[in-house]
Amino acid sequence: MNFKMMGRFIAQILSIEGFFMLPALLISLSHGEDMAVKGFLVALAAIGVGVLSLSLICRGAPSAFYAKEGLVCVGASWIAMSLAGCLPFWVSREIPVFIDAFFEIVSGFTTTGASILPEVESLSKGILYWRSFSHWLGGMGVLVFLLAFTGGKGQGFTMHLLRAESPGPNVGKLVPKMRTTAAILYIIYVILTILNILFLWMGDMPLFDSVCHAFGTAGTGGFGIKNDSFTSYSPYLQNVTTVFMILFGVNFSCYYLLLIREWKSVIRDEELRTYFCIILASVALIVWNTRGLYGTLEETIRHAAFQVASLMTTTGYATADFDLWPSFSKTILLCLMVVGACAGSTGGGLKVGRAMLIFKSLGRNIRQVMKPRKVMAVRNNGLVVPEKVLDNTNAYLSAYIIILFFSFLLISLDGFSTGTNFSAILACFNNIGPGLEAVGPTCNYSAFSDFSKLVLIVDMLAGRLEIFPILVLFSHYTWKND
Amino acid sequence: MNFKMMGRFIAQILSIEGFFMLPALLISLSHGEDMAVKGFLVALAAIGVGVLSLSLICRGAPSAFYAKEGLVCVGASWIAMSLAGCLPFWVSREIPVFIDAFFEIVSGFTTTGASILPEVESLSKGILYWRSFSHWLGGMGVLVFLLAFTGGKGQGFTMHLLRAESPGPNVGKLVPKMRTTAAILYIIYVILTILNILFLWMGDMPLFDSVCHAFGTAGTGGFGIKNDSFTSYSPYLQNVTTVFMILFGVNFSCYYLLLIREWKSVIRDEELRTYFCIILASVALIVWNTRGLYGTLEETIRHAAFQVASLMTTTGYATADFDLWPSFSKTILLCLMVVGACAGSTGGGLKVGRAMLIFKSLGRNIRQVMKPRKVMAVRNNGLVVPEKVLDNTNAYLSAYIIILFFSFLLISLDGFSTGTNFSAILACFNNIGPGLEAVGPTCNYSAFSDFSKLVLIVDMLAGRLEIFPILVLFSHYTWKND
Repeated sequence: MNFKMMGRFIAQILSIEGFFMLPALLISLSHGEDMAVKGFLVALAAIGVGVLSLSLICRGAPSAFYAKEGLVCVGASWIAMSLAGCLPFWVSREIPVFIDAFFEIVSGFTTTGASILPEVESLSKGILYWRSFSHWLGGMGVLVFLLAFTGGKGQGFTMHLLRAESPGPNVGKLVPKMRTTAAILYIIYVILTILNILFLWMGDMPLFDSVCHAFGTAGTGGFGIKNDSFTSYSPYLQNVTTVFMILFGVNFSCYYLLLIREWKSVIRDEELRTYFCIILASVALIVWNTRGLYGTLEETIRHAAFQVASLMTTTGYATADFDLWPSFSKTILLCLMVVGACAGSTGGGLKVGRAMLIFKSLGRNIRQVMKPRKVMAVRNNGLVVPEKVLDNTNAYLSAYIIILFFSFLLISLDGFSTGTNFSAILACFNNIGPGLEAVGPTCNYSAFSDFSKLVLIVDMLAGRLEIFPILVLFSHYTWKND
Repeated sequence: MNFKMMGRFIAQILSIEGFFMLPALLISLSHGEDMAVKGFLVALAAIGVGVLSLSLICRGAPSAFYAKEGLVCVGASWIAMSLAGCLPFWVSREIPVFIDAFFEIVSGFTTTGASILPEVESLSKGILYWRSFSHWLGGMGVLVFLLAFTGGKGQGFTMHLLRAESPGPNVGKLVPKMRTTAAILYIIYVILTILNILFLWMGDMPLFDSVCHAFGTAGTGGFGIKNDSFTSYSPYLQNVTTVFMILFGVNFSCYYLLLIREWKSVIRDEELRTYFCIILASVALIVWNTRGLYGTLEETIRHAAFQVASLMTTTGYATADFDLWPSFSKTILLCLMVVGACAGSTGGGLKVGRAMLIFKSLGRNIRQVMKPRKVMAVRNNGLVVPEKVLDNTNAYLSAYIIILFFSFLLISLDGFSTGTNFSAILACFNNIGPGLEAVGPTCNYSAFSDFSKLVLIVDMLAGRLEIFPILVLFSHYTWKND
C-alpha cells in the first residue's frame, strides 16, 4: 500500500474542503453567529494542521497508483472529509453529540439528506449553508472537482480512481482527456445550479433559501432549511423544484450531447426514455391511488409528481407526508428508491441504466434457457453490452443485496418495526433520506442507537461510492501484506 | 412446441396424482365423510377424463424433447396437477371458493404451507390427509417420482427436465443412471418419513396425526391439523419435529454418501457445515434476544430452535407467535426465510449453497477489483466452481429480486402494511408459509383479494420450481412461432 501517495491525496481533498468552508464562515461572521464562527475556525484549523502534517510526512511519494490504492484512497478521503466537515456542527454545539454531527455530515456529503435533527429552523445561517453545501460538493464529487480544476498533476490519476466516485455501471469519457471531461461536468453542474437558484428567487423565495435549496436539489440531497421541508412553499416553488430534481437525475453526458447539438443521441437514449417513462407511470399510478386525498386534481398531481421526483432522484424533499398514503403508493415509492436516478447523474440508488441491464439480462437468460446453444447478446442503445459489464452489474446487485440484509439485521437490534428498519436502510443506502413509519418524512433518525447510526453511516458511504471502495477499505484482503 | 409430447407427459403426471388420491378417498369412506368422498370422486373422474382424452389426442407423439419444452412441461404439469388437486377441497365445500381451494393446493404442492383457512380442525379426515400429502408429493417432486418408478420410457427424459424440478444451483447425479438416482432419492425420502412417523407415534401422537405431520415435515411444507400448529404438543414432539425439519433440509445426496460410507465427504461438505453453523448462530442470537420471554431457558431454546428450523427449512410450523418477538429476532427469521435450506433438499428459499456462491463471488470480486489482471477462481469443497454456474447463480438472484419487487408492488394494492406485504411475498416465494403481522403464524391469507392470491400462487410456483420454468411458461418468447 502506497501510504505516502494516499496521504498527499487526502491532503489535497482536505484543502478543497477548507477552501469551500470559507463562504460558510463569512456568512456566520456577517450574522454575528459566535458559536458557529468558532466551529468553522476549529474545523479550518484542524484541516490546516492535517494538510500541513500530511504534506510534510508524505513528501516525495511515488506517483504510480494501482487499482487497490485508488479505491482505498477514495473511501479514506471521503471519511477524512466527513471527519473534518462535521467539526463545525459539533464545536458550535448546534449538534452536541459527535456521532450525530458525523451522521449529519456524511448524510450531507453522500447526498442522502437523512437528518438526526428534530427541527432545523433554529440552526444558525452559517451552519445551514454548510449543511446544504455539503450536498452540492458531494453530489458531483470532490475527486471530480480535484481532477477538473487542479488537473491532478503527477498524481497518476487513472480512470479507475474517477470511476470509483462517479455513479453508474460504466463511466464514459465525453472527450479524450479525463480532465476536460471532469471540467465539462462541473461547468454543466454550476450552470444548472445557478438556473435553479434564479427560478426559485423569481418565485419570491429569499436568496439565501434559494441557494440552500438549489444545493440540496443539485446534489439530489434533500437537506432543507424549514422543518416541514417544501410543504409550506408555494405551488410554483414546489413545481420548479420537481422539474429541477428530475433534471439533476438525468445523465450529465446528455447535457453535454445537447450542448454539442447531438439531439438524436439524446432522444434515442434508452436510459433517458426509461427514466421518463418510469416517472410518468409512477405519477399516474399514485394520482389514481391517492385520488380523494387532496382537494383538487392539480394538488394531487403536484404532490404525486414532487414525491416521485424526490424519491426517484433520491433527493428526499417532501411536500406531503407520504407515510400516510395508501400502501400501493408507498410501495411504488419504495421501488423507486431502489431503482434510483440515471447513471452519471448526482442521484443514487441502483441507477436506471443498471436496472435496465438487470432486466435485459434476465430476458436474455429466459431465451437462453430455451435455446442453450445459441449465442445471445444484450444490447443497449443498439450496441452489444460487453459480458464483463453484465457480470459487473450482477456482481453489484449481489453486493447490494448482501449489504442490505446485513444492515437490516444489525439495525433491527434497536427494536423498531420491520417497515421502519427496512425503509431506513433503503433510504440511507440509496442516499434518499426519509423512509417510512418512524423515519418517515415528518420524522428523523435521532431515535436510533449510536451503533445503528454507524451502520447507517457505512451504508450511506457505500451507497454513494457504489459499494466497492467501502468494501475494499474494510476488507482484510486489502490490509494483508503480499 | 411439441404439444403432443406435453399432453402425454401431463397425462402421466395426472395418473400418478389420481393413484395417490386413492388413500385419501379410502380414509373419507371409512369415516363416512360424504361430501369429501364426493369431492375425491369428482376429482378422480376429472383426472380420468383428462388422462383418457390426452392419451387419445396425443398418440404417436415424437419422443425428442428440447430444453424449452422441458421447462414448459414442468410448469404446465404443476398447474394441471394443482387444478385437479384442488377439486376435492372445492367440491366438498370445505373450501367453498375456487381461488381459495386453488391457493391451498398450490401452497400444498409447492410445500409452502400458507393457508387461507382460519381454522383446520373442522376439516374432514380425508381432506386433512390430502392436504398434508400434497406436501409430501410436492416436496421431492412428482417428476422425480415419474422418472424413478415408471422409468420415463420413450420420453426423452433429459437432465434439464429433472433439473427444472430439483432445487439448487447444480443438480448432481448420484449414480450414472438418472433413473437410479431418482429412485435412491425417493427411497431415502420414504425411509426418513417413516422414521419421523415412528418417532412422533412413540410420543403418544395418534397415528393419523403422526402421518400428516410427518408429510408436512418431510416436504418442508407446514400444513398442520391443529389450529395452533405445534403449540399445544408436548416438548418431546416439538423437539422431534425440530430435528426432522433440520434433517429434511439437508442435501439428500449427503444421506446417499452416508449409505455408501463416504463419511469424509459428508463431514467436509461446505454447504452442510454452513447450514448447521447458521442454525446454531441463529438459535443462539434468538435465545439471547428473547431471554425473559419464556419461563425457563429450556423453553426459550426449544422455541428458538423450533422456529429457526421451521423457517430456515421453509417448513412453517410454529410453537410460538414469533410475530410478538423483538424486532431483531424477527429480522433474523426474515433473513433465514431468504437463505432457505440446502440445495437438493425438499426445502425452498435461495438455498444455502447458492447464498454461499453469492458470498464467495462477492469476495472474489473485491479481490478482483484490487488486482484486475489476475485470474481468480471461486472454490467450493476444494473444487473450482465453473464461471457458468456463478453466472447462473447471479442471474437467479436478479430474477429473484425482480419477481420479489413486482409481487410486492402488486399485492400492496390491497392496502396492508409494508411488513405484512413484504413478509407475505417472502413467505410464499420462498415456500415457507407464515409471514409477519397480518400473515403471522396465528393469522392466515384469507384477507387478501383474489388478485393478490393469484400473484401469491404464481410466486409459490416460481419459488418451488426455481423461477425459470414459470418465467418461460409465461414468456411471450415461448409462444412466438419460430
